[in-house]
Amino acid sequence: MRAVTFQAPGVVSVQERPEPRLREPGDAIVAVDASGICGSDLHILSGRVRIEPGFTLGHEFVGRVTQVADGVTRVRPGDRVLGCFHTACGSCWHCIQAQYHKCERMRVFGHGEALGALQGTQAEAALVPMADMTLRRVPDSLSDEAALFAGDVLATGLHAVSAAAVGLGDTVAVLGLGPVGLCAVQVALAAGARAVLAVDSVPSRLELSSRFGALAVDLNGQDPRERCLELTGGRGADAVIDAVGSQDALELAIRLARKAGTVVAIGVYAERCEVHMGLLWIKALTLHSGQANVIAHVDRAIELLASGRVDPSPLVTHRMALEQAAEAYAIFARREALKIVLTPQRDLV
Amino acid sequence: MRAVTFQAPGVVSVQERPEPRLREPGDAIVAVDASGICGSDLHILSGRVRIEPGFTLGHEFVGRVTQVADGVTRVRPGDRVLGCFHTACGSCWHCIQAQYHKCERMRVFGHGEALGALQGTQAEAALVPMADMTLRRVPDSLSDEAALFAGDVLATGLHAVSAAAVGLGDTVAVLGLGPVGLCAVQVALAAGARAVLAVDSVPSRLELSSRFGALAVDLNGQDPRERCLELTGGRGADAVIDAVGSQDALELAIRLARKAGTVVAIGVYAERCEVHMGLLWIKALTLHSGQANVIAHVDRAIELLASGRVDPSPLVTHRMALEQAAEAYAIFARREALKIVLTPQRDLV
Amino acid sequence: MRAVTFQAPGVVSVQERPEPRLREPGDAIVAVDASGICGSDLHILSGRVRIEPGFTLGHEFVGRVTQVADGVTRVRPGDRVLGCFHTACGSCWHCIQAQYHKCERMRVFGHGEALGALQGTQAEAALVPMADMTLRRVPDSLSDEAALFAGDVLATGLHAVSAAAVGLGDTVAVLGLGPVGLCAVQVALAAGARAVLAVDSVPSRLELSSRFGALAVDLNGQDPRERCLELTGGRGADAVIDAVGSQDALELAIRLARKAGTVVAIGVYAERCEVHMGLLWIKALTLHSGQANVIAHVDRAIELLASGRVDPSPLVTHRMALEQAAEAYAIFARREALKIVLTPQRDLV
Amino acid sequence: MRAVTFQAPGVVSVQERPEPRLREPGDAIVAVDASGICGSDLHILSGRVRIEPGFTLGHEFVGRVTQVADGVTRVRPGDRVLGCFHTACGSCWHCIQAQYHKCERMRVFGHGEALGALQGTQAEAALVPMADMTLRRVPDSLSDEAALFAGDVLATGLHAVSAAAVGLGDTVAVLGLGPVGLCAVQVALAAGARAVLAVDSVPSRLELSSRFGALAVDLNGQDPRERCLELTGGRGADAVIDAVGSQDALELAIRLARKAGTVVAIGVYAERCEVHMGLLWIKALTLHSGQANVIAHVDRAIELLASGRVDPSPLVTHRMALEQAAEAYAIFARREALKIVLTPQRDLV
Repeated sequence: MRAVTFQAPGVVSVQERPEPRLREPGDAIVAVDASGICGSDLHILSGRVRIEPGFTLGHEFVGRVTQVADGVTRVRPGDRVLGCFHTACGSCWHCIQAQYHKCERMRVFGHGEALGALQGTQAEAALVPMADMTLRRVPDSLSDEAALFAGDVLATGLHAVSAAAVGLGDTVAVLGLGPVGLCAVQVALAAGARAVLAVDSVPSRLELSSRFGALAVDLNGQDPRERCLELTGGRGADAVIDAVGSQDALELAIRLARKAGTVVAIGVYAERCEVHMGLLWIKALTLHSGQANVIAHVDRAIELLASGRVDPSPLVTHRMALEQAAEAYAIFARREALKIVLTPQRDLV
Repeated sequence: MRAVTFQAPGVVSVQERPEPRLREPGDAIVAVDASGICGSDLHILSGRVRIEPGFTLGHEFVGRVTQVADGVTRVRPGDRVLGCFHTACGSCWHCIQAQYHKCERMRVFGHGEALGALQGTQAEAALVPMADMTLRRVPDSLSDEAALFAGDVLATGLHAVSAAAVGLGDTVAVLGLGPVGLCAVQVALAAGARAVLAVDSVPSRLELSSRFGALAVDLNGQDPRERCLELTGGRGADAVIDAVGSQDALELAIRLARKAGTVVAIGVYAERCEVHMGLLWIKALTLHSGQANVIAHVDRAIELLASGRVDPSPLVTHRMALEQAAEAYAIFARREALKIVLTPQRDLV
Repeated sequence: MRAVTFQAPGVVSVQERPEPRLREPGDAIVAVDASGICGSDLHILSGRVRIEPGFTLGHEFVGRVTQVADGVTRVRPGDRVLGCFHTACGSCWHCIQAQYHKCERMRVFGHGEALGALQGTQAEAALVPMADMTLRRVPDSLSDEAALFAGDVLATGLHAVSAAAVGLGDTVAVLGLGPVGLCAVQVALAAGARAVLAVDSVPSRLELSSRFGALAVDLNGQDPRERCLELTGGRGADAVIDAVGSQDALELAIRLARKAGTVVAIGVYAERCEVHMGLLWIKALTLHSGQANVIAHVDRAIELLASGRVDPSPLVTHRMALEQAAEAYAIFARREALKIVLTPQRDLV
Repeated sequence: MRAVTFQAPGVVSVQERPEPRLREPGDAIVAVDASGICGSDLHILSGRVRIEPGFTLGHEFVGRVTQVADGVTRVRPGDRVLGCFHTACGSCWHCIQAQYHKCERMRVFGHGEALGALQGTQAEAALVPMADMTLRRVPDSLSDEAALFAGDVLATGLHAVSAAAVGLGDTVAVLGLGPVGLCAVQVALAAGARAVLAVDSVPSRLELSSRFGALAVDLNGQDPRERCLELTGGRGADAVIDAVGSQDALELAIRLARKAGTVVAIGVYAERCEVHMGLLWIKALTLHSGQANVIAHVDRAIELLASGRVDPSPLVTHRMALEQAAEAYAIFARREALKIVLTPQRDLV
């Protein structure tokens, strides 16, 4: 089968790879109909996150189940399904506490040996271990492009809004309007926020946030702190979601939050930062950090999509064939795209 | 001044009453611009809830502050304000826990000696004790009619949705589409419910719930249980809000809820009922009951109103002069109205 | 192998039964070292809960793993383990929410075809499906008799205290001092309750609750309501745990609870009851009901046992050989025992 | 009256000051029987926290009410009372949310003009504004020395344990064994922690933590991380309470916490720190920071003291006359004391 593989920093290529086979109880094979390119794929492309040359990329996917091993009960061959970006066992200490993102046997699709040696989903087919945990049936009413968000980007937005304890009538600030930030904007509004400040410096992203109902704040020329204080009568935002992952973003998040408010750092942090602990302390903030617990949120994500309460499909800026992956990654690396969806062209092969 | 007074079961009359005077630190006087008639006023009218003849009725109000005593800091003379239906001291054991509805020194407007001997607000003016707790400034953008809901009916809807822990993507059933039920419908949707089943038998109320976005279920001819199971793939509603307060409503609520779901009985219960504890037990339900903690929710209510996230103004079916109170109560008692707003006609007096 | 079987109402007998065999991925076989007799076994014995004649009884057990099927990762042959009273799949909708007690594929040991056709554990060996969810390794320091409580009675006490949200400094009332009630007493004190009222009418149980640190209230001669008000300066108990399951117990629980307090009905309810909804409403109580979510609590139960924070071993009043099961059930039915532990005598067979 | 006043960095002196007088509704005057010296007093002494020369120090106190102004309802002249270290209005936006530590009109005793111009309590008498919020009656069974902890140090320990969501069976690490850390140790154990690691380098403090039931870890020679992993089977602590307030302490806290665990930074932070955000992120930690919400916890603190569940009185290492304040501060500044209690010697004056 055809698959998008990492070759070297800056180099991906579509290659012939062996068809996946069932290996253990709980496994399923999914014929992939659509797979997204995600910001974390870019970390691999750039070489910052290291994986083995030849490893298949991708972890966002929608497709149809073709085979299931023993012990799979929630999906059957023929089912149209979406996947979470990682697997979880369901029975380790963390899973029993519903902390699936910290599963002791977690494996992430398309992230090399270090994260479980699980080939990616930018391919014609994928092996899906622990399928009952990892896959969900897609409601008929839902397009592939919408469904693609449920197991990663949208569930991450849900996780952030939930970790931020956004409630009815709250004022929320979202920093960084990539796909996760824009999903967080939608989810915060769906959760009853009275206003969402959406902060970025890219006009097209700001414009999209406005369409979703946010108050866009352009870092080129506008002061988010001023807008936030103005909007809240001087109190500050009840919750701030940092979807950037940088020292500056965190500093801004801490400044925007009201006393006894919440900051959720959902953007990736990998190193030490200078943090204004004095401000965090005097404001009595709660700072929640880390990768999203998508398995805990994917069912809600599907409900929100199916009911039309949120609709991330405007985030899809590019639809390309799997064979065009090299070009797609180049576009994405130049930040000309929000979400690129790759589709295997089986009929042509 | 003129005030609507209870005279005897079935008899209210507008009479001349002494102007209210400041008595204690924390008091304010409010010139009333609008006061609503509420379902609980009907319990007084019917004689079920007993109050002293001559007592002024009413507990929903919007107006302007005319005087404040020492110790009032949140409002000043001239401020346009709305009121909560009861006072709370802010410093007793329950208030410290933010359980303002169980304040040890709570007084309810217009409910006679038993509930604190506090004259009602269906009058030209009202004495408001503990004004910092009880009053809130009304944002300029908000009409009197919308503001009128913040301190009672809408805050009750908020309390119910909050006690039911309604979350993103949940399915909610609301039983009884009086003003509280209809506000609960709006709030549940604002909180991200993917669907709200609105159950009643009055066509106009069902129609209004549909306009608000609910799935109306007419008890005359439709089976709410069937609709609920259909809608949830057989699982049942995540949360059920009983805004009726009757044995039958509670039975239905318990039947509609999914396993490990929640039932909030916000409708008034005053006596023993036969409850299907076996079903409650086997489903592992949580049943939350009681009057709303409106002071804890009034600020959120105002945010939701001011931002347009909810709009209860379609519930106002009648606008009448204070002097027409007897007729208004008659209309209300015949259940021809949802919300009647009484306005003192000072210019004419 | 030898197993305790239900034959007819009032009749149990120890019979020869086939050795259990592995059937599916995730299964384990456990050689039972100790199995308890539980109050719910009595419901079967009396005929109130109906199971098939010849079915093996029992659902509390400690033993050693002898075999595991594919897919079992948390335990290995040779491990000393304890079991939860039911299985859960870990991946259905309810399990993903950590509501394991409402698992769609739940099976209860020793409760006949209706609850999953899973033979009981009062036997020399037992088949344990979904072993990663159902079994836990027993710390070396823990005796069989203490470990026996972790997966049922103690986890139920933990569930009740947790559902009641018992906090530091709270006053708690526990109604009914069977094993679950006595465990709830211990757990409430371990959770920081400043006082636990333990209410029953059996002197030996009251005496045991006192040894555990509770304030015993004998229904023969003492008024629990008076004691409760006295103890709380008239406010009432923050949380009441009804470990009886009767209309009278529930009425008392509602009366003992303070305003805005919590009642947890952990005792079994199977039918309609007259409930004082008026009182529930005026007090704004939260009533939580249902069987315990033991899988969610079993790890904490083991920590509490291993650290000596709770010690239910004084509840074991009788130790008998498996062959003496008929006599053991007779003693238990006469309510002469709190907890009877049955031990297979393999050496003698 | 006699009062301990700040004169200049390093200089306190006992001087004659005017007797306090009632000024506003809600005020009370308390004749002080005992007042503690706290770590935050040391910040003033050193000049790091700046207050006006001549300002009276102190914010921990027990005494008797001598006068009350209008509007005070919870205490009366003659009552033996304890105080919280700050006042709160009970009715501002934050107070309504029970965030009393962020009250918009908060005043802190003995912290100069900047924090509300409220003279301190290391004096023969003190003015106590908002007495219903700030004062609590002391149960007869409680000594002055135990009561002294309720409104500051112990309530801070409670806040930390509560913010850390310490639950039954949890493993907790406490960094820094000053009075707050030692109270946190006691409270965590009272809340059902199965083990508390108490980390410091002062032998006497470590020894005291052991007496309270903790596992002491001496930074001189022992590796807290190793002890923590050993104790938790490699998982890490469920909750870590940083009662130090330094970059190193925070780094250690983040290292000790398990994945999806909690760090509570209750120690004072005033500046920027280098924080290992990468580790915080990969572990998905929640970091809660800030001064304690003592008014929300003082009632529980009193219950725990009165019931003997916690007893901080061993922390009192020195009892001195108010007139000896200069010497007391010198001892405290040399870190030779844990808690010094100053008592006015009225009879001698």
